[in-house]
Amino acid sequence: MAHDATEEQIKAIVKKVEEKGLKAEISKGAERTVIGVVGINAISYREAFAHMPGIHEIVPISTPYKLASREFKREDSVVRVGDVNIGPGTLTVIAGPCSVENEHMLMETAWAVKKAGAKLLRGGAFKPRTSPYTFQGLGEEGLRLLAEARKATGLGVVSEVMSPGDVEVVAQYVDMLQIGTRNMQNYPLLQEVGRTQKPVLLKRGMSSTVEEWLLSAEYLLSRGNKNVVLCERGIRTFEHATRFTLDINAVPLVKELSHLPVIVDPSHGTGKWSLVGPVSLAAVAAGASGLLIEVHPKPEEALSDGAQSLTIEAFNDLMSKIKKLCTALDIKID
Amino acid sequence: MAHDATEEQIKAIVKKVEEKGLKAEISKGAERTVIGVVGINAISYREAFAHMPGIHEIVPISTPYKLASREFKREDSVVRVGDVNIGPGTLTVIAGPCSVENEHMLMETAWAVKKAGAKLLRGGAFKPRTSPYTFQGLGEEGLRLLAEARKATGLGVVSEVMSPGDVEVVAQYVDMLQIGTRNMQNYPLLQEVGRTQKPVLLKRGMSSTVEEWLLSAEYLLSRGNKNVVLCERGIRTFEHATRFTLDINAVPLVKELSHLPVIVDPSHGTGKWSLVGPVSLAAVAAGASGLLIEVHPKPEEALSDGAQSLTIEAFNDLMSKIKKLCTALDIKID
Amino acid sequence: MAHDATEEQIKAIVKKVEEKGLKAEISKGAERTVIGVVGINAISYREAFAHMPGIHEIVPISTPYKLASREFKREDSVVRVGDVNIGPGTLTVIAGPCSVENEHMLMETAWAVKKAGAKLLRGGAFKPRTSPYTFQGLGEEGLRLLAEARKATGLGVVSEVMSPGDVEVVAQYVDMLQIGTRNMQNYPLLQEVGRTQKPVLLKRGMSSTVEEWLLSAEYLLSRGNKNVVLCERGIRTFEHATRFTLDINAVPLVKELSHLPVIVDPSHGTGKWSLVGPVSLAAVAAGASGLLIEVHPKPEEALSDGAQSLTIEAFNDLMSKIKKLCTALDIKID
Amino acid sequence: MAHDATEEQIKAIVKKVEEKGLKAEISKGAERTVIGVVGINAISYREAFAHMPGIHEIVPISTPYKLASREFKREDSVVRVGDVNIGPGTLTVIAGPCSVENEHMLMETAWAVKKAGAKLLRGGAFKPRTSPYTFQGLGEEGLRLLAEARKATGLGVVSEVMSPGDVEVVAQYVDMLQIGTRNMQNYPLLQEVGRTQKPVLLKRGMSSTVEEWLLSAEYLLSRGNKNVVLCERGIRTFEHATRFTLDINAVPLVKELSHLPVIVDPSHGTGKWSLVGPVSLAAVAAGASGLLIEVHPKPEEALSDGAQSLTIEAFNDLMSKIKKLCTALDIKID
Repeated sequence: MAHDATEEQIKAIVKKVEEKGLKAEISKGAERTVIGVVGINAISYREAFAHMPGIHEIVPISTPYKLASREFKREDSVVRVGDVNIGPGTLTVIAGPCSVENEHMLMETAWAVKKAGAKLLRGGAFKPRTSPYTFQGLGEEGLRLLAEARKATGLGVVSEVMSPGDVEVVAQYVDMLQIGTRNMQNYPLLQEVGRTQKPVLLKRGMSSTVEEWLLSAEYLLSRGNKNVVLCERGIRTFEHATRFTLDINAVPLVKELSHLPVIVDPSHGTGKWSLVGPVSLAAVAAGASGLLIEVHPKPEEALSDGAQSLTIEAFNDLMSKIKKLCTALDIKID
Repeated sequence: MAHDATEEQIKAIVKKVEEKGLKAEISKGAERTVIGVVGINAISYREAFAHMPGIHEIVPISTPYKLASREFKREDSVVRVGDVNIGPGTLTVIAGPCSVENEHMLMETAWAVKKAGAKLLRGGAFKPRTSPYTFQGLGEEGLRLLAEARKATGLGVVSEVMSPGDVEVVAQYVDMLQIGTRNMQNYPLLQEVGRTQKPVLLKRGMSSTVEEWLLSAEYLLSRGNKNVVLCERGIRTFEHATRFTLDINAVPLVKELSHLPVIVDPSHGTGKWSLVGPVSLAAVAAGASGLLIEVHPKPEEALSDGAQSLTIEAFNDLMSKIKKLCTALDIKID
Repeated sequence: MAHDATEEQIKAIVKKVEEKGLKAEISKGAERTVIGVVGINAISYREAFAHMPGIHEIVPISTPYKLASREFKREDSVVRVGDVNIGPGTLTVIAGPCSVENEHMLMETAWAVKKAGAKLLRGGAFKPRTSPYTFQGLGEEGLRLLAEARKATGLGVVSEVMSPGDVEVVAQYVDMLQIGTRNMQNYPLLQEVGRTQKPVLLKRGMSSTVEEWLLSAEYLLSRGNKNVVLCERGIRTFEHATRFTLDINAVPLVKELSHLPVIVDPSHGTGKWSLVGPVSLAAVAAGASGLLIEVHPKPEEALSDGAQSLTIEAFNDLMSKIKKLCTALDIKID
Repeated sequence: MAHDATEEQIKAIVKKVEEKGLKAEISKGAERTVIGVVGINAISYREAFAHMPGIHEIVPISTPYKLASREFKREDSVVRVGDVNIGPGTLTVIAGPCSVENEHMLMETAWAVKKAGAKLLRGGAFKPRTSPYTFQGLGEEGLRLLAEARKATGLGVVSEVMSPGDVEVVAQYVDMLQIGTRNMQNYPLLQEVGRTQKPVLLKRGMSSTVEEWLLSAEYLLSRGNKNVVLCERGIRTFEHATRFTLDINAVPLVKELSHLPVIVDPSHGTGKWSLVGPVSLAAVAAGASGLLIEVHPKPEEALSDGAQSLTIEAFNDLMSKIKKLCTALDIKID
């Protein structure tokens, strides 16, 4: 309450708290009175009090997410995608081209990343592009090529779904649905994906707080899909020397707040292929359960994201370093 | 090019530029050589060069949007919504509740904002909510209530559409489709709305640059929908004392870069009802063609956004000040 | 406290609170226990608790500034600079070149801005420049020229001080000391300026929260200098289409939180001369008590900030609009 | 140039470029004409052109720093502090309390961090504090205690200098001067420190770009002090779940752009002791040449930064992990 809040103002608030079925507990301090509001989902009534006189500030105490929280579930979750377990003590490398461009390049990349140690293949069929004048992806044809690559190589495949109406068709082809950074708060999409049991890679919104990210996971979990893997992919800051600022702090922070596995996308997080290697190693050392890396046989001919894609050679080099690091840190590669 | 780029590296780039059907123009300077790449849509080939040796930096010169640009169309566009013209020299006030909650409150608000001078009625039926545990809107029932309010008051109505599959149904009921901040880069939605001729209120993404915002407008324009109104509604910054930071600079900047009308949402831009008045006046003075203001008969009982909603009384006061200001600045209220 | 905090953990915290001479008030809720800590300056002990087991989160309630707060002093402060009162109900325009370059241009500018209605003259003598290779200002010679311009025109003068060792000399020449954005948290400088009674223009740090800004004012006030005017000058955000993002919300917000006058610098806040006019009008409409505007007779020859400086002609035009606006809003120009 | 720039406008610009002693090279493209401006320090004339008609945009090509750039000096610099070499292939751990509080705690910490493997001792004597009401440091007495700790343990000492007038006295006591985040653009301080030969730890401004950071290093280098070590310590972003966002990308990026060594401060970069370990390991894996870690024997009694300080036990644990990691990555600890 404000310094000069009257007894009547305090009483009015207590009355309203009780009308909502909540409990008010009053602390009178030297400088001001604090009214604690307790009860199930008390936070959702916050705005009902915003206009009442005598209030200095309303401060939330509880976290607004439940099922995603570490308090709800103490043990780390493990998400199974195809034959692979994403979770504690292991590192899962997901690699492949930004976009599926054609069969030849996809097969070449798939075999190469498999040989280097990746366990899942990524590739975009439906592409969210900032400009309407750039390549928009192959659509369902891209999904068919991914399914063929899986059949040939045995790698599980991950691809983005952008629209609630596409969930069913994408889910038929892939092992893991990706929700992209621009769709982290696309609630109709989250609800639709939440209704399936398909594993989900939920990328952090480029300007989303960790709390909002976990609330988006909560949409999926509360609809019944427990197979959620979080992916830190860089946030938007004032620094434009890199495409985004990879939030390395978020890796151990999310592990404190949530039981869900968290992986890192150093390709988007940096936007510059020469930084992908060092930042991948950093992510592993920080405790990420996986990496999502863009690889292209000829980045200079890529239809999208060439600047941040590794060549196959560079990816091989990086995988050698990652393996050495995992050995030193007692992490299994899966 | 880098300081120490070789002649061969320069030649390789020129060769590649020409292979793409573009023209390379070389400037040899005291410190470095600059290669200008010119031709239609040259910028889309940018990534094809990112891996080539000898390059110091690739700097875009052209703006990537065309139809939205002031260079493409010199005169200000005017967008007609119902009986109202949104464009230069006029101020259009759109007001109403955050969510349509029930018939009674909607009618009360509609009549009150009309009486105060608002020309369009806003109200959310499909609501994007950060938490899955809060009120998600009445859906189509909300749209029906909006249509009734239009019939009764004659006010045109504006409501948000969140999913491509809902565009048709929402367009049947409303005079203007709103694309919310979380959907500014929801490309399937933009494409679907772009196929209609329904006026669109395109809110700026909370972490979108002005360039990205104009590129999203370009999605709509290039699909054939020319009736686009831009809405600045605050961006996400380090300052959390207000819900967002309203980017007042964006108003005159967008008017320089684009012919599209731009309006301002001071309710979301501040998140605090006591700041809505001063910031509304600021927006008008900066040249906005309209305002989008949340009004609720009893903000303390609102199911969403109560903290930033004006009471009817406060809205009346504000409209008096706005009228005085418009008179001084020779702006017509429409 | 955490959900699973034990009685012993709660007792340990209460014991420690009491050892610090503070009072602990306990609220046991449905989901968790909240311990309110009350007492003079309780917030400064915050870190002493950060390592104790069983704590979920420590949330500050009091504002950490006192003398700058509206709660401490209800009435708006008025700061007198030369013959001018900066405070409520008036608009004070401070104008002049970014840097004092030579006597001729300074005199020309001083007379021109006076004629147009400015009441104070700005001009940099000691310049903080991002690059060591650009013009660093005339130093004391610049101050002498400012003093001459004051003698000739009667305008009070404002200039920046960058170093505690320069406070005395700058204070001899000027009517108001400016503390620049890069020095808002230069505490030795704040302390030295706080010891004088000279009016101070305290610019907001480009990445400072409103709370940190008011804490820097608190440094000045608590050292005995009550003549503090705050200046919003744009904050650093992800948007780089303008030099900074002018935080228009901060104007009414600071007026709620503090009794100190707040003015706006649209020149730095936009970085682009064509935006200075609209944003100046916005600042006046939002309730700013003054404007700080860069004016240069020939911006294209300016040694610094030419891109954001108005020509004398453009400044004249703007002042006409400002006068019209002030008349409409019942604001006196002083 | 703008699409519709006239021949006369182009000629006027070319004329002006040549008047400045620079060279203009013209590329006429399909969409617009580009004028390349070349010559020594061409960038500093940028603003002289901002007001000229017909210009669409002025885009800088050269980097504005020279001595700090990798182009100027290809080999990595090594900075010697006491007996320690900070540079490539080695990891230097600097540890100690945020503030020097008293002799006993300083000695206890110094011996403990030495035993665990730290090579330099940090400790603040002059403290920049956001609030005027919190502990401001022991001043010169703190420096004397640091010098005693060096004598006793043999560890070189690092401490912050905040004011140009203090540079001489601080330099007498310490082995390395720290320039704090709030002073990265305190140019009088940079100039004074640049005149000494004392090694400098230059922290990145919390809202400074990498380019501005290297320009601040340029101030030091251009004054003659070549012993500059850069320190990434977190930047200010919208994410407030951690105190700052540690910019891990900056580590490999700075190593590309500059020859100067870069170290990381995970204590300020996270603000939360439980995140310091994982982020320290990430920094080493990303290629940092050192770490700056806050350690306190009893963080719960610390006068500043207790929440982010490691206990001696936690620091010992972390050093074991760091050693294991360095062995795996062939990094020598020095």
